[in-house]
Amino acid sequence: MKQFSFNIQKQDKNTKARLGKITTPHGEINTPDFVPVGTLGSVKSLTPEEVKSAGAQVILCNTYHLYLRPSAQTIKELGGLHKFMNWNGPIITDSGGFQVFSLGLSSRIPRHENGKLMTKISDQGVVFRSHLDGSIHDFSPEKSINIQEKLGSDIIIAFDQCPPYPASHESVNTAVERTFLWAKRSLNARENKSQALYGVIQGGTFEDLRIKSAKQIISLPFPGFAIGGVAVGENKKEMYRAVSWVTPLLPENKPRHLLGVGEIDDFFHCVEKGIDTFDCVIPTRLGRMGHFFTNEKTIMGNKRWQADIFKSVFNSDPKPLDQKCSCYACQNYSRAYLNHLFRSEELLGYRLLSLHNLHFLLKLLGQIRSSLADNQFDKLKHSWLHL
Amino acid sequence: MKQFSFNIQKQDKNTKARLGKITTPHGEINTPDFVPVGTLGSVKSLTPEEVKSAGAQVILCNTYHLYLRPSAQTIKELGGLHKFMNWNGPIITDSGGFQVFSLGLSSRIPRHENGKLMTKISDQGVVFRSHLDGSIHDFSPEKSINIQEKLGSDIIIAFDQCPPYPASHESVNTAVERTFLWAKRSLNARENKSQALYGVIQGGTFEDLRIKSAKQIISLPFPGFAIGGVAVGENKKEMYRAVSWVTPLLPENKPRHLLGVGEIDDFFHCVEKGIDTFDCVIPTRLGRMGHFFTNEKTIMGNKRWQADIFKSVFNSDPKPLDQKCSCYACQNYSRAYLNHLFRSEELLGYRLLSLHNLHFLLKLLGQIRSSLADNQFDKLKHSWLHL
Repeated sequence: MKQFSFNIQKQDKNTKARLGKITTPHGEINTPDFVPVGTLGSVKSLTPEEVKSAGAQVILCNTYHLYLRPSAQTIKELGGLHKFMNWNGPIITDSGGFQVFSLGLSSRIPRHENGKLMTKISDQGVVFRSHLDGSIHDFSPEKSINIQEKLGSDIIIAFDQCPPYPASHESVNTAVERTFLWAKRSLNARENKSQALYGVIQGGTFEDLRIKSAKQIISLPFPGFAIGGVAVGENKKEMYRAVSWVTPLLPENKPRHLLGVGEIDDFFHCVEKGIDTFDCVIPTRLGRMGHFFTNEKTIMGNKRWQADIFKSVFNSDPKPLDQKCSCYACQNYSRAYLNHLFRSEELLGYRLLSLHNLHFLLKLLGQIRSSLADNQFDKLKHSWLHL
Repeated sequence: MKQFSFNIQKQDKNTKARLGKITTPHGEINTPDFVPVGTLGSVKSLTPEEVKSAGAQVILCNTYHLYLRPSAQTIKELGGLHKFMNWNGPIITDSGGFQVFSLGLSSRIPRHENGKLMTKISDQGVVFRSHLDGSIHDFSPEKSINIQEKLGSDIIIAFDQCPPYPASHESVNTAVERTFLWAKRSLNARENKSQALYGVIQGGTFEDLRIKSAKQIISLPFPGFAIGGVAVGENKKEMYRAVSWVTPLLPENKPRHLLGVGEIDDFFHCVEKGIDTFDCVIPTRLGRMGHFFTNEKTIMGNKRWQADIFKSVFNSDPKPLDQKCSCYACQNYSRAYLNHLFRSEELLGYRLLSLHNLHFLLKLLGQIRSSLADNQFDKLKHSWLHL
């Protein structure tokens, strides 16, 4: 079984973009790359073979969700997450931090018996309610690492505090300090050294706090870094700015993951700032809603590179979703059929659009890698963003 | 393109069961066989390749549903149903009769502007409301045939009146007479002679009416016959009796289809009475509900050959759904994972159980064919039914 490593194969001359390769115990990830999300141990509606056929090299699963159901212990006893979900490639698990803060604390805040709100967040950890049944749980750096070790993923992520947006400088500063404290405890909690533990950089939309957090986290012996607290409500300019404050401080020889980001323009703007991997539920979520990626301007709706299969113009359209796409959906089905499946709420429709969207994004990432190899990144970026 | 034909390869010595082969323009169907149902032009949750991999030789689609959405004309313009849904094997379409009576008349009976109920059923045809939007439509033998010709299926079915259960002798007799009238008109309405038109035998649970209907319908030049008005609420004994009244009257050299029937015991009891093909939504519908077919007695619930994946005993069970099954689901996933998928409402779960159930039934039909070839049908029947 191979050890975790990261090699830069080519550094772009004009930007901070890099062509690289992450090696993990379950295989290699050519970077830059997009990581499909299998929240509950399934990339929604698809088999692992289909996810792979769409071009995926690695997937990301959610610690918070798998902890609540079916539990890390169950997955461990069944041979680990790879075997459980039948995915034999690399797996990233997140720390659970984002979901604990966004789901666990969102609506049902735990109360003491006297009716007072519980201390939800302290340096010790977080007390939260399950979004499934309201039961009370707690997470800490030690617990998050323990869960991720039981899951057996290849890349694990340190437990962090992800503040909401907008948030005051003071509260984001508290989150940064706590994330640093928890990063050290996450490192100390490790028992399985074959998993690569990424440290998380917070700091919201504040330049000084992003820089502070980056400096704190890179002072620790993490083999890779993730930028968190992005795509939480701030606009894209703010997000790109946050990335550009952080990446110049990160060691060049370690991979950088951008958490929860994965729209088409994001890839170009963040790869050129030195991001290596992205994860996002967008391609599969959009697919289940009937939105499909396309390069054909004439059919796009309000959003670039997207069209809505429900539109009546597709009722009798014999063309595939995207005329240049080689995915299974585009090779075998018309827009008219897919429109029919969605109107009829047929499950096959959700599958086919999810597959197409994944394929479309992963192919784009492949093009980005090729463009970096050929010194054509800037040209590719301009052709997509019509700059 | 091959013409429709039916050949009996072996007649069982002890029963009326026959081993046969139906040839259609889109391929052959070894009989006895089970026909998976793709109501709206999709065997729910599965791709055509998966349906084929489960062992399906032919599928059945619903004229009523496809007429309402996306419309027969749309499907015709898109190259016919085979191309539309990407299934290149044989397709059977039903007449729409069953759905017109069960869905179209069930709740919202059309009224004239003066508030009086419309004449719903006459010798001319049926006026009904769409279950989708309440719009008023009419079906007649001519219209049903016209729709099925536009769909381009390989085997089409004459428009019949399917009475509810229970129904009086008088009302079933009316349906029998009308079905005969409509059978003649269905034959006359044909323009595309490459499709095989099956006549439908009605008669409910009345012996005299089943015999009368059979004699009427076999007097007409149909290349095959379907028994309708079964599995509409009567008990299994009554259903098997109806089949046993009819099949001795049918010409031996033409195939017999039993409409809407497909439980495991039904195959044995009806194959031995001379039925060649069956269709039913059961394997996929049960699959989406979390019920899976199995031969393992220790895990069965109230129903024979079925277990419920939601049961907590499966929470941490590393075994496949059925330990002797070679389907994709059983080769790659544990009951624990499938239990997790169903509890989490993950679409992949519906797929995997649908696939398993289809595979399980189609393999059984393959065993029935082998047993007929080897003179072991009775032995196979006894081993399954524990007689």
